[in-house]
Amino acid sequence: MVNSDSLFFIYGWIRKSSGSSTALFLTGDAQNMLCMKLAESLGVKIKSPWVVWFKASCFPALASLMLTPFIIYKICPPETKHTIDAPILAKNKLEQMGPVKQNEWIMMGTMLVTVTLWISGGSLSISTVAVAMMGLSILLILGVLSWDDCLSEKTAWDILAWFALLLGMATQLTVLGVVPLLSKSVASFLKSLSVGWHVQLLILQSIYFFIHYFFAGQATHIGALYPAFLSMHLTAKVPGTLSALLLAFNTDLFGALTHYSSGQAAIYYGAGYIKLQDVFKFGVLMAVINLTVWGLIGALWWKILGLY
Amino acid sequence: MVNSDSLFFIYGWIRKSSGSSTALFLTGDAQNMLCMKLAESLGVKIKSPWVVWFKASCFPALASLMLTPFIIYKICPPETKHTIDAPILAKNKLEQMGPVKQNEWIMMGTMLVTVTLWISGGSLSISTVAVAMMGLSILLILGVLSWDDCLSEKTAWDILAWFALLLGMATQLTVLGVVPLLSKSVASFLKSLSVGWHVQLLILQSIYFFIHYFFAGQATHIGALYPAFLSMHLTAKVPGTLSALLLAFNTDLFGALTHYSSGQAAIYYGAGYIKLQDVFKFGVLMAVINLTVWGLIGALWWKILGLY
Repeated sequence: MVNSDSLFFIYGWIRKSSGSSTALFLTGDAQNMLCMKLAESLGVKIKSPWVVWFKASCFPALASLMLTPFIIYKICPPETKHTIDAPILAKNKLEQMGPVKQNEWIMMGTMLVTVTLWISGGSLSISTVAVAMMGLSILLILGVLSWDDCLSEKTAWDILAWFALLLGMATQLTVLGVVPLLSKSVASFLKSLSVGWHVQLLILQSIYFFIHYFFAGQATHIGALYPAFLSMHLTAKVPGTLSALLLAFNTDLFGALTHYSSGQAAIYYGAGYIKLQDVFKFGVLMAVINLTVWGLIGALWWKILGLY
Repeated sequence: MVNSDSLFFIYGWIRKSSGSSTALFLTGDAQNMLCMKLAESLGVKIKSPWVVWFKASCFPALASLMLTPFIIYKICPPETKHTIDAPILAKNKLEQMGPVKQNEWIMMGTMLVTVTLWISGGSLSISTVAVAMMGLSILLILGVLSWDDCLSEKTAWDILAWFALLLGMATQLTVLGVVPLLSKSVASFLKSLSVGWHVQLLILQSIYFFIHYFFAGQATHIGALYPAFLSMHLTAKVPGTLSALLLAFNTDLFGALTHYSSGQAAIYYGAGYIKLQDVFKFGVLMAVINLTVWGLIGALWWKILGLY
């Protein structure tokens, strides 16, 4: 039995950090875009990435999202099961906030336009970056955001600097031959096993997933291993788009493995409601469940989509 | 007669904003680097830009820096001419601050290394950007700065975004033929005057300077006009390096023309010690004095340096 606060934090940690919601949309996290960018530099160019991503992710991600609260509810049953006050509390809060404000309408409209263009941009030849810039421009021009708000958005500048450096170093590792060398030696080992690419894919994805026990944060993992693993997939003759997407999904999913496996996991753990042994126990449990769900439903769905 | 506070602000405004100190070093302001970058995109590539810049600027800038306080003292004589308390006040303040701290020593050492490498970088084939990154890395590694300090440095991110956009747009204006068209028509007009390039240079520089009455801020002026004017100089057969440097010096010097002519001018005026009519009166007076000093001493000095 746990109290409802703990349940909330465990649930939040698993749901947010195991990232089935992050993996649902290309725009669910900046790191998804980083993965696609790295894939591009290795020659795996995906047209209309937003649509291709969503098509591939929707079924396994939604299944995983629906299963997670149910499983957590079973393995950590909460003390309070009936919350009669909650709807009243929510109603009061909503009344306090008042009707939707003009800026909020503009924000919603802009998001709608932006997401629509991200979805249809591929066929209209509008790049995702141009769409994002347009959305930002609308918010700046209509005064929903000021440029000073943008300058104060430290996380965004952090990502900008961090990703630019990571991308540059990862590209150099490929150019200077470190990634090709590494992937060739692993590939030759996998070849010596005389198994088809399906099994090789399974082995590579599992290694890529569980090696995350040795990484703090997802971006470092991507920078260090995404290009090398993608390169190994390609050498093993796994279809390019499938490889690039699966590694990216994988990256989103291993965010709840430990309390240091992602920025959000650290914050949930830091709140103090989850015991360390629970983090590791539930982390590996949910990892296996997630991988099973994504593996089974995904395998079927990606076959239907013609990704392999 | 003005009180000493006013004198301080008038002096500050003229000295800081008319930018002889900014024009003294390539690294005196980010906009200097922007000018050199734009010149490069038009084919005027300067090797060891820091040294070339400093050699060209040192004499006129130092002359101007020495003359300015003297002139301001004459045209706005202060009420209090004897400040016996000042040295005692300074001594007390210094005692309060205590000895130089470790971080401050590291900072000085880093600046020394960085500036040395900026000066000698040309012959060692180390780019100015690499040197700047190295300096920043030292400060980050030794803990003088934290990355969070960098993220909080809003001005730097502002310049990054602002200059990237400006540079991109200015380059596109050149690529799409707007700048060449404009400079060709002005050049053909100048040619019809049948004067040598010296006179054409004088006309172009004067227009570039006084047109700043219509601009708020220096970066906008650079973005809109630097490439076009440099292109006109080149069409008029003015030597490339001389043209690029003079336009950049010019940009630094017109910062005190009005209270909206540069970011620093706006701040000095905003403090409320300088009357608006004084801003315009002293602005144009110092402009003429600065241009005369730079014109006369410069012309002689740049001939000796072999810039023309």
